[in-house]
Amino acid sequence: MTQPNDETIARQVNMLPMSTLAAKLNIDYDHIYRYGHHKAKINAAEVFKQPGRHGKLILVTAINPTPAGEGKTTVTIGLADALRRLGKEAVVAMREPSLGPVFGIKGGAAGGGHAQVVPMEDINLHFTGDIHAIGAANNLLAALLDNHIYHGNALDIDPKKVKWRRALDMNDRQLRHIISGAGNHSDGVLRPDGFDITVASEIMAILCLAEDLNDLKQRLGQIIVAYSRSGAPVYAHQLKAAGALAALLKEAIHPNLVQTLEGTPALVHGGPFANIAHGCNSVLATRLALHLGEFVVTEAGFGADLGAEKFCNIKCRKAGLKPAAAVLVATVRALKYNGGAAKNQLATENLDALQKGLPNLLRHIRNLREGFGLPLVVAINRFASDSEAEIQLIQAACAQHSVAAVLTDVWGQGGAGGTDLASTLLHTIDNSANNFRLSYDNSDSMAAKINKIATRIYGAAKVSFTPQALADMDKLAEIGLGHLPVCMAKTQYSFSDDATQLGAPSGFTLHVRAVEVAAGAGFAIALCGNIMRMPGLPKTPAAENIDIDEHGQIHGLF
Amino acid sequence: MTQPNDETIARQVNMLPMSTLAAKLNIDYDHIYRYGHHKAKINAAEVFKQPGRHGKLILVTAINPTPAGEGKTTVTIGLADALRRLGKEAVVAMREPSLGPVFGIKGGAAGGGHAQVVPMEDINLHFTGDIHAIGAANNLLAALLDNHIYHGNALDIDPKKVKWRRALDMNDRQLRHIISGAGNHSDGVLRPDGFDITVASEIMAILCLAEDLNDLKQRLGQIIVAYSRSGAPVYAHQLKAAGALAALLKEAIHPNLVQTLEGTPALVHGGPFANIAHGCNSVLATRLALHLGEFVVTEAGFGADLGAEKFCNIKCRKAGLKPAAAVLVATVRALKYNGGAAKNQLATENLDALQKGLPNLLRHIRNLREGFGLPLVVAINRFASDSEAEIQLIQAACAQHSVAAVLTDVWGQGGAGGTDLASTLLHTIDNSANNFRLSYDNSDSMAAKINKIATRIYGAAKVSFTPQALADMDKLAEIGLGHLPVCMAKTQYSFSDDATQLGAPSGFTLHVRAVEVAAGAGFAIALCGNIMRMPGLPKTPAAENIDIDEHGQIHGLF
Repeated sequence: MTQPNDETIARQVNMLPMSTLAAKLNIDYDHIYRYGHHKAKINAAEVFKQPGRHGKLILVTAINPTPAGEGKTTVTIGLADALRRLGKEAVVAMREPSLGPVFGIKGGAAGGGHAQVVPMEDINLHFTGDIHAIGAANNLLAALLDNHIYHGNALDIDPKKVKWRRALDMNDRQLRHIISGAGNHSDGVLRPDGFDITVASEIMAILCLAEDLNDLKQRLGQIIVAYSRSGAPVYAHQLKAAGALAALLKEAIHPNLVQTLEGTPALVHGGPFANIAHGCNSVLATRLALHLGEFVVTEAGFGADLGAEKFCNIKCRKAGLKPAAAVLVATVRALKYNGGAAKNQLATENLDALQKGLPNLLRHIRNLREGFGLPLVVAINRFASDSEAEIQLIQAACAQHSVAAVLTDVWGQGGAGGTDLASTLLHTIDNSANNFRLSYDNSDSMAAKINKIATRIYGAAKVSFTPQALADMDKLAEIGLGHLPVCMAKTQYSFSDDATQLGAPSGFTLHVRAVEVAAGAGFAIALCGNIMRMPGLPKTPAAENIDIDEHGQIHGLF
Repeated sequence: MTQPNDETIARQVNMLPMSTLAAKLNIDYDHIYRYGHHKAKINAAEVFKQPGRHGKLILVTAINPTPAGEGKTTVTIGLADALRRLGKEAVVAMREPSLGPVFGIKGGAAGGGHAQVVPMEDINLHFTGDIHAIGAANNLLAALLDNHIYHGNALDIDPKKVKWRRALDMNDRQLRHIISGAGNHSDGVLRPDGFDITVASEIMAILCLAEDLNDLKQRLGQIIVAYSRSGAPVYAHQLKAAGALAALLKEAIHPNLVQTLEGTPALVHGGPFANIAHGCNSVLATRLALHLGEFVVTEAGFGADLGAEKFCNIKCRKAGLKPAAAVLVATVRALKYNGGAAKNQLATENLDALQKGLPNLLRHIRNLREGFGLPLVVAINRFASDSEAEIQLIQAACAQHSVAAVLTDVWGQGGAGGTDLASTLLHTIDNSANNFRLSYDNSDSMAAKINKIATRIYGAAKVSFTPQALADMDKLAEIGLGHLPVCMAKTQYSFSDDATQLGAPSGFTLHVRAVEVAAGAGFAIALCGNIMRMPGLPKTPAAENIDIDEHGQIHGLF
């Protein structure tokens, strides 16, 4: 496992010119416009006017995340490279990373080893400016709202019922809860306020679900920013904000084109939070990729309980997408952790812990195959410390459930380490029934939707709602939004709402504390426990080790 | 004066391809990299390695601003176009506009009429992301600072003596004064805090004064972010922040290339506040323009008392620049306003008010010619309502002081409306002595520097310092920063610190309330009165009228 670090690997590769990348996708070069040498935006509306393909959509998802790391993004990238090696016109569609976490615990978030998207520094730092544009739109809406209150408050907004928070793309715990409008009378209206990290903004979710510019503007206007003193929702369009917000997003709505280390085109666009939002790249990027490629490899945030569930029930439902198959990523290490092995013992063979952790994998298998009706392959993302016996144990368990579990090493070998996975996947798609289905109907009551997810996917015995949550659901129905799909906001570490319950807990009660609404994005949000929307920095932030030399070369990002 | 609005004029022009623009500047196309179709960044370090010119630097400045508008940016752009019409290889170097004000009272800030830089929508909205990058760097430093306090505060920072504020590129009065770190213990440390508009961040000033990436990093490390409980300054480098901050600015440091409506290359880069900072575009853009053009037309913020003074005493001092001449922009309307005419009466001929307002122009003439020793031409920026008698009155007064005052109409005619100004300017440069000099020496005490500016440029009788200001200056000397030049922060509307004293007040006392330090940028800041660092929005913000259609065309920005 001694290979150069990600930074070194990325620099050894000569990136393809953007014109070559455009040619690979059969895009007229006039329909892409560069941002620097190796990033571009694609004018999707123009490209859709040209004849295209009807690509197959592959969802890469994972078991519940652990501190051991699963490598979902790495597998997504490597699988696309592997499909190219098998002669398939594959395209990656994935999220763009948030700036904040880059300075926190880890460095970049664009794959790893020999399965990366590049230029990694740029993708991690500002990229094409999408997230800054979303932040600006978020904060313009906040400024317009407070300005309305300040200048007479004609809409009778209750300052204690402002729902719209401010946003920054930074890990900054200091801004989670603030009192704004301090100072003198001319400095605004004193009220409780706070900042979320920009990727948690509803505007990010909206951008990722919008069909086009008109739909974007429409959705922006539908954001509920506050409630009046009489309890009526106040919409962004009542502040006449939608046009200016959409203008701020005029470039951000266009999907970004970059490449993998092996020259596979990658559409990296949008990155909504995976708990309080739906956690997958933009609908526009996915559609565009399906128009341009034979196979589109995409991923969804966190484990399959959150990521795949929302990918299906929110993104696919809204966009009319039908996945061709799912790839479920597991690692020996993460399964041992799920089975009770200590974090610092994961490099030691432990068949007992692995056996105890397997139910986590098996429940995700059941959910994807039986719950969502998808053809499925398990990818065992190999680490050097994995023993043969451990790998065989996983494969045997999967075989018992008639699922192929393929050893994958795209981190160490790039696409070459993923060709077994790719060919098994192609075989599975060709030879399995696709019975794709969603978990609930729009017409189900909000409580019924939550119940179905909790009992059918999480394995809960029942759901308890606080009086607040019950009142919230009544309010939703009252204002005509009861038909929305629900976005579950719970811990990613467990099927339950208790982060310490690893493996495959059952018989538990899921506690729903409150139900919010993202009326512009078009979903309700069921809050199970406290959900962090603004991360903090660790005692020794990664920022301390990031540097740039006089030639503009960045060090320490990886 | 019936001509199409700025939006319509801008759209009727076919912009030159960036390759043509690069060729006009003799830049290797490999040294520019596009951001979309009609914006690019120039790798200045590479271009400086090629042989270049030693262009002549023309500073466009103005009388004190009034609600009537003077059109300094418009004249800057039109003058460069006019110089091109006379066969001179002219280049514009100007500031990039802040996003915040676009949504406030006015629309865009990229010239007007037939003298604009384009693409105007892009320049006004995000442009190439420089200001967002500066905001991110500003807020990373803030997050690192609060994180340090939160995790044990090894540097013993006094939370009540944090000097580093947060930043947003938005007009948002609600954020001027906040209490941050509210919530629970895990949500930071409760303290008074606030946001400035990003262009007021010291990091903007640093970017605009940095020589190169190394100098940038060095300066970032020198920022004083707080004082310890024992009164010692705490520098950004003590938080190990400089490398990560510089990495965030790796693209922002490269000058941006766009064009005027007539295809004149324009380097639009950096835009520090003109009161608490020095108010002119980046040193790198100016140097690059001088390397590429025969004549570089640049501007400085507000009237010549603030803008030209800082341009000379801060920017030229630090960068070793020597202007070839100054152009002083005046309008009949603004001079009448300075002479007491009411804002709604400026279209009516009023020779009496004009006569009373002239001393404002004459003092600026004296300052530029005798104070700074610069060859000078006055540009009378024509409005349709100006009467012949009014124009002649200004010209006669200027003639008495041996200064040419040339009627200019670049707003209505583009470069053609500025050729008289351009040829007079060329003649003046060739036939006048250039005795460029600064107003004070680095070795003068801080009080002496302020005194010299106040008495020699503003016309003050004397300066009074509050006990706070005196203590601040002592502290500056104590920490070894007494040699820095001073950045005056006073109202732009008057030579004095009282915004209502129009014309050319004299005999007044200038009141210095406090003296701050921007140790990274390398100047002290003398605060005369309350200086707004975070604007607000008006009752009916311009944002309400901004829209975008389904083709991505923005309306209402102008």
